[in-house]
Parts: sequence; C-alpha cells; structure tokens
Amino acid sequence: MTKEKIILPENNVGIVKTEYFSFNGITLESGEKFGPITLAYETYGKLNASKSNAVLILHALSGDAHAAGLHAEQNAIGWWDSMIGPGKAFDTNKYCVICSNVIGGCKGSTGPSSVNPKTNKPYALDFPLITIGDMVTAQKHLIESLGIEKLLTVVGGSMGGMQVLSWLVKYPRKVRSVIPIATAIKHSPQQIAFNEVGRQAIMADAYWKSGNYYEGPVPAKGLAVARMIGHITYMSDISMAEKFGRQKKNYAEPFKFTADFEVEGYLRYRGDNFVKRFDANSYLYITKAMDNFDASKGKPFYEVLKDVEAKALVVAFKSDWLYPAYQSKEIAKACKLSGIDATYCEIDSTYGHDAFLLEVAEETHLISHFLKKVVFEYEAKGRHDK
Amino acid sequence: MTKEKIILPENNVGIVKTEYFSFNGITLESGEKFGPITLAYETYGKLNASKSNAVLILHALSGDAHAAGLHAEQNAIGWWDSMIGPGKAFDTNKYCVICSNVIGGCKGSTGPSSVNPKTNKPYALDFPLITIGDMVTAQKHLIESLGIEKLLTVVGGSMGGMQVLSWLVKYPRKVRSVIPIATAIKHSPQQIAFNEVGRQAIMADAYWKSGNYYEGPVPAKGLAVARMIGHITYMSDISMAEKFGRQKKNYAEPFKFTADFEVEGYLRYRGDNFVKRFDANSYLYITKAMDNFDASKGKPFYEVLKDVEAKALVVAFKSDWLYPAYQSKEIAKACKLSGIDATYCEIDSTYGHDAFLLEVAEETHLISHFLKKVVFEYEAKGRHDK
Repeated sequence: MTKEKIILPENNVGIVKTEYFSFNGITLESGEKFGPITLAYETYGKLNASKSNAVLILHALSGDAHAAGLHAEQNAIGWWDSMIGPGKAFDTNKYCVICSNVIGGCKGSTGPSSVNPKTNKPYALDFPLITIGDMVTAQKHLIESLGIEKLLTVVGGSMGGMQVLSWLVKYPRKVRSVIPIATAIKHSPQQIAFNEVGRQAIMADAYWKSGNYYEGPVPAKGLAVARMIGHITYMSDISMAEKFGRQKKNYAEPFKFTADFEVEGYLRYRGDNFVKRFDANSYLYITKAMDNFDASKGKPFYEVLKDVEAKALVVAFKSDWLYPAYQSKEIAKACKLSGIDATYCEIDSTYGHDAFLLEVAEETHLISHFLKKVVFEYEAKGRHDK
Repeated sequence: MTKEKIILPENNVGIVKTEYFSFNGITLESGEKFGPITLAYETYGKLNASKSNAVLILHALSGDAHAAGLHAEQNAIGWWDSMIGPGKAFDTNKYCVICSNVIGGCKGSTGPSSVNPKTNKPYALDFPLITIGDMVTAQKHLIESLGIEKLLTVVGGSMGGMQVLSWLVKYPRKVRSVIPIATAIKHSPQQIAFNEVGRQAIMADAYWKSGNYYEGPVPAKGLAVARMIGHITYMSDISMAEKFGRQKKNYAEPFKFTADFEVEGYLRYRGDNFVKRFDANSYLYITKAMDNFDASKGKPFYEVLKDVEAKALVVAFKSDWLYPAYQSKEIAKACKLSGIDATYCEIDSTYGHDAFLLEVAEETHLISHFLKKVVFEYEAKGRHDK
C-alpha cells in the first residue's frame, strides 16, 4: 500500500512533530499519587518575550495533540487545522498555540495501554480512575515547564470544553480568557447513557477480557459499536438526511444484514477505522471521566467562579443535541452571575455536535475578535501599570 | 421464587389468553412464497352482529399480542391495558379489540426462532427477509378468518404505526379509519443508524454465530446493548433528567466501570431483562423490516393514498426525537392532499417516544371521540342507504 499524498491546505503551519513532556507525576483528585506521567503535545507559532501569547487547545474524546499542520509520520493533517495557522482564528503569526493530549488516553500520553513501571506490563485496569481535573493538573505541569505563567486563552470543544471549565475553576489566575465550545458544566443522564452504552459494548466483547487484551486480539467489534453510537450523536437528523438520504448500496449477493443504506456503510467504516487508532480501555477511562465531571462540584456554578477574572466566550450550536445549547447557556449565565465578562454565541448550524469542527468561518470570526480584545485589554492594562 | 402478585387495574378485561391462528402461508413482497405461518393474537370485547366494531391494534418492535388484561401464565398485564377495557379509549363494551403479533417475531408467531418444517431446526438466518407489508398480509388472513370484512380502525404506535400505514395503502377498502401514532412514512438515516448500531451490537457478540445459537448460549450481551440504545431513544433528555438526575448508587467496593449513576443501572437492568424475553435474530429481522419500510414506495405519499376513503387521526408527541413530529405532519399532510378526512394532533408531552404508551388521558380523549365519529358516520351512511 502506498501512502495517499496529502496536500497541505492554505496558510498551514507546515510539517510538525509531536513532543513529549515527562515528569514525576501528580496527586490525583482521588488523593492517590500517580506517576510518572508523559504528556504528548504540539506547538505552533512562537512564544513572545513576555510569554503572554500562549493559547492552549484541548481536544475532545478521541482527539490527540496533533491539531494543525502535517504530521509526517502519521501522514495526517491536524484535527483543527482549519482554525490554526497564519491569519487563521488562532493566528500563529501572533500566538503560540499549544495542543495538549490527556492522561488516560492512548495518543502518546500515559494511559491504560502504557507500561506500568512497577510490573513492566500495560496498566490495563490497574490504571487509576482519572478525572477531567486530573487531565488539567497534568497539563498545568506542561504549561509551567514551558515557562508560561498565564495563558492568553484556553479553548476546546466537547470534552475539550470540560477541560477549559476545569482550568477556569482550578487555576483561575493562570488564564486570561477561556473559550468553552459545545460543552457542559456536567453531563445530563442522556449524555451519561450514551457513554454507558458505548462502555457496555466494549465490555460485552469477548476479547475485552476485563481489560487484559494487550497481548492478544483487541475488543475491536465492541469498540467499533461504541464509536458508531458516538457518530450518530455527533451528527444531526438534518445533517444525516443531507449526507445520506435513503441511498442504498448495490450488492451482487447481499447478505441479509448487509449495510444496504449508505448511512450503515458509513457507520461501519467509521467504527472499523476507529479501532485502528484508539485503545478500548482509554475509551472506558475517558468517557467515565466525562460522566463524573461536574465543574460546579454540586454547588451553583457561579459560586465556584467567584475568584475568576478571566473573560469568557461561550459557543454553542443550534442543531447540537448531544451538548444542547441550553447547557452552554448555563455556563454563560453562571459566568455573568459571578461577574465574569462573558459572551454567549449560538451558531445557527445544521451539523449537530460536529459543528465545532466544521463551522470554521463563524468560529474564526468570533474567536479572532475575542482574542484581539483580550490582548488589547491586557496591553492597555500594561500601559496603565507603567 | 414466588410469583409477584399482580393486581389488575380498574376497568380491566380480566384474565386473557393468547390464541394462535395457523394457515398455509403468503406470498412475500419479495415474490417468495412462505409458510406455514402462525400468528399469535388476543381479542377483548365482542364482535357485533354486523361485524362492524372490530379494532385492530398493532404493536411496536418489542411488543406482543398481549395488549390488555392479565395473562395468567405470563403473570403480566397487557402492554396497552390503560387504553383497552370497559369505558377506556378502546371501549370493550362497544368494540371488539384484536391485537395481532407480527411474523418475524418471537412471541408465538412464526419467526427465525420457529422450527423450519423442512429441516426440523429453527430457521435462524434461513428465515426470509420480511417486510412490514408482509406482516400486514399475514394479519389480513387472520382478520378474514375471524369473518371481518372491514375494520372499524387500525391503530398502533411506532412500528405499529408503520403497519397501520401499510394496511391503509395495501387494503384501503378493508379499513374505515386509521390511527398512526408516533410513526413515519419511512425511516430517516438517523432512525436507520440507531437500528443498525443495535444490529451491529448483536452480530458483534461471539455467541451470535451467524444466527445459529439456538442450541447454545444466546448473544445476550449484544442484544442487551441493542436494547439499551433503544431505551435511550425512547426517552427524552427531559424525561431522563426528571427520572434519574445525576443520582449515584452506593457500592461498598465499586468496580471501576460499575453503574455509578442510576441511569446506568436502569439501562443495564432493562438490557438484561430484555434478553430473557426476546430473540436476537427477531431483533435483526424486525429492525431491518422497519428500515426498509417506505409506505410511499418512492412516490409522494399522497399519490399512493388515491383510493383511500378511510378517515385518519395522526398523533405525535412534542418531545419524541426518535419519531419527530415532522414525520407525523408529513403523514397528515399527504392524507389531506389526497382528500382523506385527516386530523393531526401533537401532544405536548415530555416523555419522548415512550409517550405513546404513557399519555393515556390525552390519547383516550382524542381516540374515543374519533371512534365515536367514525361509528356515527358509518351508522348515518347505513340509515341513508336503507
């Protein structure tokens, strides 16, 4: 098989490589000490002399550190390339953009598929239950190791948005602004339910073996089913109707339960592909971290935001039924109640939850203006302080 | 284990039993001849002398012929008991109510788990791919065997509603009225997608063995996952939030991926329970029949309704996102375009798709008045004809 030649889109950040930051470890929110930890990350653009132009980008459930440019070994364009580069929303001529992976994952950071130094075998289910807050604690070590005292902004969609909220609550003095996109203060029972069914599909797979599958075949079918469920929830009724309709495939000798409809073929393809690039145990740990996440810690969210001085841009999408707009409105409302300078914007998209990756023009407009304002106010304050 | 004592609700039809109608068979819509066929059914109330008071009730994906009263052997109340009985929406003092099961199922009618007389083994995947239209053709044999020339009404929700539409299109002279509830002319890609993931979950189960599991353990985990997906789609975001919130269960020694949240426990319970009463291959065949269903046969639906004289009451529910109200509006619109006397009613419920089983008061009001009108017009016509 020859590699497909990928042509870099315009205004790209060029060839990139993933870097790895290793450190002793952290105290998890459970109280347990855990380490050593490695975090995979990428950077695009240059840190300025005052180290005040750093943007931290955080990814969703199945994302990774490769957010922009061409990764030569992976032969892949970054997952948010449309938003990161010279002249783009996250303008690499102005900002130093950092994208950090998460602990618990399988994309170069310490997770259940990593080797446990105590046993020289993969952790599997000996990996501790981690939280969104733990992911953020590890990221804080990374940011400090880069010499950054305060981030210009922290931005992310979906689970990335949960990390954004966690940064805001845990380290309010470390962020000048936040951009939570298509996310929630905490999961509703419906969101938990979709994740739970995905987990059940994985654990139902005979190859899962209570997580001890690293020396044999992986629970491929279960993980594929989990991913298929995910894909349905990422699209909208309308976007599916537009993309697939009731188009049927043609088969010479159809099996009774063949993927007759195009949407079936799409889901099977997406499910099978996912298995090649994602670890089933990571899927369990990360979805559980999402379900357990509660940025408000049981209190009204605005109370937890008391000490926050950061500005906020909260973005939601009309057709997103997995993270419905009312959840983003709750974030914006709590910000305003706690005196945060917050803007709420609901983009009129038909793409469903996927919109945060696809509504590039609208997001670029909103974000580039928001960041200009944050920078302007920071510089004005600097002039004032002199 | 002692049986839980079930107390019959008020205005019940008493102790009932399921009956079985066997006949030679039918020509399937595929052209294939198939038989012999047995259909399970129940009846409540008495057929009048003119045999003009028969109501045919059709069930959803996992339903059965036991719609009302107490089934002594099953120790179970019928699935629509709240709607069927003396003085209820389907008033057994006035109407003879018949509930028919479907071919392809596993509730006493011929399906993939039935013994193939040619091999003396269960059909498994040798069972032919059946359609909603085939289910209805078999039901027509049952109705004729009961001496009924024309049904007062045919009613059903979800897949039951598809059968209603199929009765209307295939046998327009056999029905005086129809009541399709929370249903669709054809499945959208999103509806197909949810069914497909359920099928994939079943076929991913190592015990499925291409359908040949009848002599060993059944694909229980896969079928349970399929059912869990179903249950999420039957409820609404709001009804889940009201029922479960983020209540957590307490465990002395929690497994990492325990059902912490009540919604998780609920889904696992529902999934496991379903396996005891449903056949995985039936789940495949019936969901495929639903996905392949297209009452409009590729034409505008109103064109297929040209010869229809029946009246129609089309019911949808505001929070039903699996069969959204726009799909019922399409049915009502096509009825009106073809000159059918049709009423559309959208009930303001928060129960999601389950509402068709739960919004008893509103449905009773609508349906009892509708049936009175159908009877009145029929009797007026009778007087006029004399």
